Amino acid sequence: MTGFSFSISATDGRARTGLITTPRGTIRTPAFMPVGTAGTVKAMLPDSVAATGADIILGNTYHLMLRPGAERVARLGGLHRFMNWERPILTDSGGFQVMSLAGLRKLSEEGVTFASHIDGSRHLLSPERSMEIQRLLGSDIVMCFDECPALPATDEAVARSMRLSMRWADRSREAFGDRPGHALFGIQQGGVNLELRAESAEALKRIGFDGYAVGGLAVGEGQEAMFGVLDHAPGMLPADRPRYLMGVGKPDDIVGAVERGIDMMDCVLPSRSGRTGQAWTRRGQVNIKNARHQDDPRPLDEDCTCPACRSYSRAYLHHVFRAQEIIASMLLTWHNLHYFQELMAGLRDAISRGQLPAFVAAFHAARAEGDIEPI
Amino acid sequence: MTGFSFSISATDGRARTGLITTPRGTIRTPAFMPVGTAGTVKAMLPDSVAATGADIILGNTYHLMLRPGAERVARLGGLHRFMNWERPILTDSGGFQVMSLAGLRKLSEEGVTFASHIDGSRHLLSPERSMEIQRLLGSDIVMCFDECPALPATDEAVARSMRLSMRWADRSREAFGDRPGHALFGIQQGGVNLELRAESAEALKRIGFDGYAVGGLAVGEGQEAMFGVLDHAPGMLPADRPRYLMGVGKPDDIVGAVERGIDMMDCVLPSRSGRTGQAWTRRGQVNIKNARHQDDPRPLDEDCTCPACRSYSRAYLHHVFRAQEIIASMLLTWHNLHYFQELMAGLRDAISRGQLPAFVAAFHAARAEGDIEPI
Repeated sequence: MTGFSFSISATDGRARTGLITTPRGTIRTPAFMPVGTAGTVKAMLPDSVAATGADIILGNTYHLMLRPGAERVARLGGLHRFMNWERPILTDSGGFQVMSLAGLRKLSEEGVTFASHIDGSRHLLSPERSMEIQRLLGSDIVMCFDECPALPATDEAVARSMRLSMRWADRSREAFGDRPGHALFGIQQGGVNLELRAESAEALKRIGFDGYAVGGLAVGEGQEAMFGVLDHAPGMLPADRPRYLMGVGKPDDIVGAVERGIDMMDCVLPSRSGRTGQAWTRRGQVNIKNARHQDDPRPLDEDCTCPACRSYSRAYLHHVFRAQEIIASMLLTWHNLHYFQELMAGLRDAISRGQLPAFVAAFHAARAEGDIEPI
Repeated sequence: MTGFSFSISATDGRARTGLITTPRGTIRTPAFMPVGTAGTVKAMLPDSVAATGADIILGNTYHLMLRPGAERVARLGGLHRFMNWERPILTDSGGFQVMSLAGLRKLSEEGVTFASHIDGSRHLLSPERSMEIQRLLGSDIVMCFDECPALPATDEAVARSMRLSMRWADRSREAFGDRPGHALFGIQQGGVNLELRAESAEALKRIGFDGYAVGGLAVGEGQEAMFGVLDHAPGMLPADRPRYLMGVGKPDDIVGAVERGIDMMDCVLPSRSGRTGQAWTRRGQVNIKNARHQDDPRPLDEDCTCPACRSYSRAYLHHVFRAQEIIASMLLTWHNLHYFQELMAGLRDAISRGQLPAFVAAFHAARAEGDIEPI
């Protein structure tokens, strides 16, 4: 592996901070990756995403293969150029999305055949095709094609699914080949069963990857069960490689995951919440739709330096949200992404200084205060 | 009138270029004003609107009085602060919008009572209330409350409507009072009847205004009829005051209006077109939805310096428009506003150099070429 590396500069308990280096730039860890599903982080221009502090974004294989199509993106110079984001991109494998197409997909040892939600056309995703699509997109960090069973599920079903994912991990590694500057991450499965998690970790380590994801969490098991797994799962994975918790999460999920040794996360939450009028602040969640904001001249968060907080009142944000103006999605998404990145920066700084427990205590204390009182 | 002035620096034929000076900044004329209906130029941040070259935007009394309410905006520090646009704002009087509420409004000498399209609540707009609302909003350029009849209409109906508007202009002037740094513009009516236009102009000049609008055009009469009026109407108005053509228009309408002595215009066209996938370029209109763009790596216009053209292909714009991504509206609106402002800058420059005919000829020649050939 040339051009991709991970170095840890400090630890605090199980938490780590460091840098992932790629030819397209470095990623400060712990890192939160905004999701750019279909070639755009919704309601944001790429420069604005970078301005929030994001070093890397996530693209979705499933969405991009269907529209505009991986071959088309490749002809147009790859995903980075297509969407005007020259920094690192991680792509998922498409596995998670096709599994959620209940009734529209058919699973076999070979892979998954499914019908497009856009036009009903038939497609196959397999380890080999997923690797090909992610190569066509030009992804910097490629994810193994895996299956993620919906929870709750029996141990037997989880085990069967995990072992299929491990065979697919082997095929993904084989199909990925040797691509200097590009990384391939394995994905640990096993649900909330720690023995299966250990078995999965061993299988992945035998194959060998540039990084390791903890998959199959944040799928409805609840924070307590997730943290229960995270108390052990990261320790099963190589300490010198990045550990990526997929699809997480809310700010308190993020903090708990970082405390437990996670280095990377992604979630649609900050952008999706922005479009539904939910703002995340250090004092918790604010529903800007609520009438109590309609005369409030104060910003969402007086200490926040994002454009929405620097230049707009809650009254304005309330108004444009109610009037269904696009600027409401633009400003709330920007604020949320800014807040998430600020949280990551705070975590990294606290780990560097060996002050993570104090940072976490202050994080929870601010949330316990709740949103500012109405005027 | 203190703090508001208009100076003409050059003329070319009937066309003029100059500066409107206000306490909130200067406006280069001929000026195109993007429309910020409900406290936002749709899909744009104010800094981006300014970056396109806009010196002034337009706000809608009708929309703002209903939501969030003029008194609320005043309590929050006025419209400039509310929407984070510190440069000049012109507000319309609300007259045009309430007149289009056919069946939901009642016209009398006093004014217009109407039902809100948002919640059905009853409201009155009169010259006095319109002046009050525009004062509460903090508008820099206030428009008289007027009636604009739908065309076609009989001369008698147009005359009756125009004379009512002139009585309302008198009441608007009286209600506006003396507000240093703020301007009040009268609105000429009279449809396509030049005698009525002349009568209206005389009535307005007797009252005396800081600027004069040509109203009642661009309401379905067609470009030929509009230019027919514009061949004479601006000359009926004081040469030393700004002349504002309301609700215009397409690029060729703008060019023709400037040739005929118009100094200011506004239109939702560039922003609305952006949201429906229509791009305006020097070579005419481009429908980005069209499948012929799906593999096109070229920008909308290779000579355009807007962010959409600098950093994105037609293929990308096509993709995000088809995928109904917000960034499609953001980029196409930005491009369109940029193009409209670039056109205004070109017109101003050409008038300054006494080269307007050559500029207009080149403008029409580029459009005659049509959009670039598909690859």
